[in-house]
Amino acid sequence: MKLPRDVVRELLVEPGRPASLANRSTAAPKATWLPRSGDGPPSRKELAEQDLETFRSELARAQQLLYADGRWALLVVLQGLDAAGKDGTIKHVMSGVNPQGCEVVAFKEPSTEELRHDFLWRCARAVPQRGRIGIFNRSHYEEVVVCRVHPELLDAEHLPPGSDAGGRLWHERYEAINAFERHLVRNGTRVVKLFLHVSKDEQRQRLLARLDDPGKRWKFSAADLAERAYFHAYRAAYEEALTATSTDWAPWYVVPADHKYALRALVGGIVVGAIDDLDLRLPPGDEATIARGRETLEREG
Amino acid sequence: MKLPRDVVRELLVEPGRPASLANRSTAAPKATWLPRSGDGPPSRKELAEQDLETFRSELARAQQLLYADGRWALLVVLQGLDAAGKDGTIKHVMSGVNPQGCEVVAFKEPSTEELRHDFLWRCARAVPQRGRIGIFNRSHYEEVVVCRVHPELLDAEHLPPGSDAGGRLWHERYEAINAFERHLVRNGTRVVKLFLHVSKDEQRQRLLARLDDPGKRWKFSAADLAERAYFHAYRAAYEEALTATSTDWAPWYVVPADHKYALRALVGGIVVGAIDDLDLRLPPGDEATIARGRETLEREG
Repeated sequence: MKLPRDVVRELLVEPGRPASLANRSTAAPKATWLPRSGDGPPSRKELAEQDLETFRSELARAQQLLYADGRWALLVVLQGLDAAGKDGTIKHVMSGVNPQGCEVVAFKEPSTEELRHDFLWRCARAVPQRGRIGIFNRSHYEEVVVCRVHPELLDAEHLPPGSDAGGRLWHERYEAINAFERHLVRNGTRVVKLFLHVSKDEQRQRLLARLDDPGKRWKFSAADLAERAYFHAYRAAYEEALTATSTDWAPWYVVPADHKYALRALVGGIVVGAIDDLDLRLPPGDEATIARGRETLEREG
Repeated sequence: MKLPRDVVRELLVEPGRPASLANRSTAAPKATWLPRSGDGPPSRKELAEQDLETFRSELARAQQLLYADGRWALLVVLQGLDAAGKDGTIKHVMSGVNPQGCEVVAFKEPSTEELRHDFLWRCARAVPQRGRIGIFNRSHYEEVVVCRVHPELLDAEHLPPGSDAGGRLWHERYEAINAFERHLVRNGTRVVKLFLHVSKDEQRQRLLARLDDPGKRWKFSAADLAERAYFHAYRAAYEEALTATSTDWAPWYVVPADHKYALRALVGGIVVGAIDDLDLRLPPGDEATIARGRETLEREG
């Protein structure tokens, strides 16, 4: 199964065009969730969940082939504000995948060692090897978003010599990110960038729900609340970053995140589609070795 | 659900006692697979598959709690000859686990950089952080098994100064491994070591089947066949290593691997049991922060 092409196109941030996040946090306009023929009237949610189930099993199959083929890697970059659903998306979309072929890297506050390197260093070290799926839960984009909203984090010690947190710095960072990703793509890594877009009101509902859930309330931190005050500054920083870094080789998708069922089905569909586009094949194996192997083993019997 | 205690005990290599691998490759004597009351006469295989399904979902739950609790890590060490079922076990037992909390490290032939470090270096760097499950697909035990069977791999350059591949070297390596694992255990990492034990004849059947499967034949290498000639040397090396390194803090389990269904259910049960033994709990969260959070968010509404 594939996500319809016009659905995917609707989520795409077209390279060279300004990204706008206004009114894009609810289910994708064209798409979600296509009513289909069948008996009974399943709800949108049920349809999306069925589709997610299909995408999950297709993903398990696609990953196996990615692994066997061994020529390509897939890097999925997940960005989004607190409570946009990054962790839940990983859990619900990627569980079922063989963990041997999938690595998730969650980037937290940088360590002292990381801060003393250039801003791409820790991400460059963590990209997946060929044959694997790598998932960045937050990524190098924090460096043009969080730092943009909070320039006080850019300690002079961690800036390039002679630099300040002015416009030129961000421009240089976008340029570096684009060059980094182009390099990855040229060397066999498909880069899929997903901005999970949650509205301010839905974020509020989710944070409140988190407080009521004994399984989740321990995750709540004062920082979640403090960052919420910058909601609009984050949105502006994302709009600029998405505009500057949605490229032909590594475009951004804005995935509406206000309905989790739609979010997950869309992410599942995009990721499966990205692997399927790679024209993967099973390596044939070496015929001479195989023939000799069969002969030797059969002789033993 | 738990694996019965006497089943687990039967698989255990009792610390201080010599390990014997004779006749231990078929389904665990006491255990596999316990007939149970219920309607109809399900086969052993069906019973084992049902139990695996149960263990898989319990594992997903247990891992979530391990992650939330955050005080412990789990390291699963998988060893076994070619075609013993290491990859399949990871795929069938661990798929379903949230890949964000699980990392699989497959140790292949060491790189030049790795060879120029001590023999534990690359494994020590790869242990899971607290809250996570780490799976070693092959491990530091290759260094006392493969190198034992093929001492020619121990280039003089890679040995400690003044050392040779004689008995003292292996003794020192066992000692180092035991100390390394004791250190991990003392620092909050539970270490579960599983030797997947396949018989020579079953290995032959599986290698032959691999040659007939277009999805797998590309994996077949001349080395698989060459190593088969050392089957008995490997068994002897494993018996010695298991005897020397089954400790109170990190015991070995010999898991019969000739029946994949039994192998997988047993591994699932042992891993779930290891996490459940940890007495995990959800962190309570900070009450003052939670109260302030609720107040702020509700005021907005």
